[in-house]
Amino acid sequence: MSKLATNRPTMNDVAAAAGVALKTVSRVVNDEPGVNPATADKVKAAIDALGFRRNDGARTLRRGHTASIGVVVRDLADPFYSTLTRAVEEVALTHGFLVFTGSSDESPSRQRELALAFCARRVDGVVIVPVGEDHLYLQPEIAAGVAAVFVDRPAANLDADAVLVDNVGGVRKGIEHLLAHGHRRIGFLGDAPDIFTAGERVRGYREALTSAGHIIDPSLISMASPTRAAVRAALDRMLGGPSPATALFTGNSRVTVAVLRELAEPPPEHVKRRRPALVGFDDFEVADLLSPAVTVIAQDPARIGRAAAELLFRRMENKNREVVRRELPTRLIVRGSGEMPP
Amino acid sequence: MSKLATNRPTMNDVAAAAGVALKTVSRVVNDEPGVNPATADKVKAAIDALGFRRNDGARTLRRGHTASIGVVVRDLADPFYSTLTRAVEEVALTHGFLVFTGSSDESPSRQRELALAFCARRVDGVVIVPVGEDHLYLQPEIAAGVAAVFVDRPAANLDADAVLVDNVGGVRKGIEHLLAHGHRRIGFLGDAPDIFTAGERVRGYREALTSAGHIIDPSLISMASPTRAAVRAALDRMLGGPSPATALFTGNSRVTVAVLRELAEPPPEHVKRRRPALVGFDDFEVADLLSPAVTVIAQDPARIGRAAAELLFRRMENKNREVVRRELPTRLIVRGSGEMPP
Repeated sequence: MSKLATNRPTMNDVAAAAGVALKTVSRVVNDEPGVNPATADKVKAAIDALGFRRNDGARTLRRGHTASIGVVVRDLADPFYSTLTRAVEEVALTHGFLVFTGSSDESPSRQRELALAFCARRVDGVVIVPVGEDHLYLQPEIAAGVAAVFVDRPAANLDADAVLVDNVGGVRKGIEHLLAHGHRRIGFLGDAPDIFTAGERVRGYREALTSAGHIIDPSLISMASPTRAAVRAALDRMLGGPSPATALFTGNSRVTVAVLRELAEPPPEHVKRRRPALVGFDDFEVADLLSPAVTVIAQDPARIGRAAAELLFRRMENKNREVVRRELPTRLIVRGSGEMPP
Repeated sequence: MSKLATNRPTMNDVAAAAGVALKTVSRVVNDEPGVNPATADKVKAAIDALGFRRNDGARTLRRGHTASIGVVVRDLADPFYSTLTRAVEEVALTHGFLVFTGSSDESPSRQRELALAFCARRVDGVVIVPVGEDHLYLQPEIAAGVAAVFVDRPAANLDADAVLVDNVGGVRKGIEHLLAHGHRRIGFLGDAPDIFTAGERVRGYREALTSAGHIIDPSLISMASPTRAAVRAALDRMLGGPSPATALFTGNSRVTVAVLRELAEPPPEHVKRRRPALVGFDDFEVADLLSPAVTVIAQDPARIGRAAAELLFRRMENKNREVVRRELPTRLIVRGSGEMPP
């Protein structure tokens, strides 16, 4: 591996081929004045003939920045995060920056390794969907000049820029919608309780019910990764008992899809189920084509990514500006599944 | 911007704090022998106290490679490409490599800019979903030692490693499936004809019909970007005439979803439509939850990405090995929409 890229033509090769001084080649490559046009043409011809390409890595490193940023999401294959990352890429490109990407898979150690590996390459900034309880390891990087913006969730113990979504308000809106359609027994299927957004969203569920004067029934709450077994067990409990839920709220699109897939299966023989009304957090492709079409509380991942990238570039310009925490709104999209009667 | 990262502690700062020579710090940082344990501990304590972090960018550049690769896809927000990219990331991480990503949006100039920008950062390799008719611009990079693997489509005029999918065979399998279910009038809705995979897939359609002794009816073929207007016009023509298509084959998941969305709308008053059978190229999330569930010819984007990354690392190890062109198979997934009678 250490022999890689060693047969690249150098500026010295160009100078020799054009019969000019190294400094002259450097002036042409860097668009500096002081070269007469005929000589410049000779240099350019040699550059083309040899396939010489300027080494931006070395150049930017000498200047002290690399015109690159690192993005660490939960899973780049998840459309929510890939759409968010694509939006970061768009903003970065307008600034002439390139983007490193990495997926943490909800592992704090993998996230830390990725973020520090990006910093070791001297990225100018990082956009991170934080995992775990400790992000202090980024403090020396930030102190050294790396801009950091947290997205989807705040950093655990670091006062840094963040772009979040109004999770509590979004869920409240969804639960109030189900209440307005006559539902009183509303099940909540969230994600693993240590995920920040999962915690916020179940809080929204509790607040909406409490504000409306209803009592929280813990048997109607399930906080677990949406494995098939966990979703099936939760649905059997919530829909199969003597006083079943007539509506469900699902805490993110992975949960929504897992629940819809389970509801499409015939229930076990001893369980009698009516199709419950359903509102899901997060929009997803073809939610409008299902029967019934799925009512959702939509976030806008492209807008989240754009906002994060814009904050990041403002932070690069001014390390000393006040820490900003933006909270983006959600939108109720009524499609049918959330308007079914109890 | 040029002041970025200037307040990072340097090895000189560490040497001063630990009261040792610069060379000693360098030995500790690079795990070189010749430092006694007590001194090494003093250096490590100073490193922790100052928050010193080795500059991997400078270090790898001096060695002539950067332990990074660049991935240029059509659109990172598209689940097919984000799943492919995620798989590349996984393989790269096992080699200790980081991944730059970028989206071409089917623009040859944007793709060229991204690929050359990655090369200018001295990535060790690039994985590219090629766009356009000319990829010769990569020849000097490859000659200089950059490994290149093309994916989903071959490079236009460059003999380079590629990972493709058996598009012709996949479509033939889908059309033969529809023929076996009694369909004779089968419409084909592809994508823009200048996209390699779109051309291959319509070729599979023609071959399957011709091999089975049927005549190609050009009015049953539409090759256009799946805008709403284009899809609507094609469906009105194929399904509304006196001898309507009884089945459709859609050339990728973007087309499939656009067609399903259009079929869900009531047709214009003068058009009488029966729901056609449908087989789509590409699987997509919740295809199994639609009514009818969608029969597809599935590619495996994670496998494609993995195969591309593995080829890339083999190419890095040996620039002179023979050019490899792998073609991955597709899989027919029977779900209901492709088994409806004429």
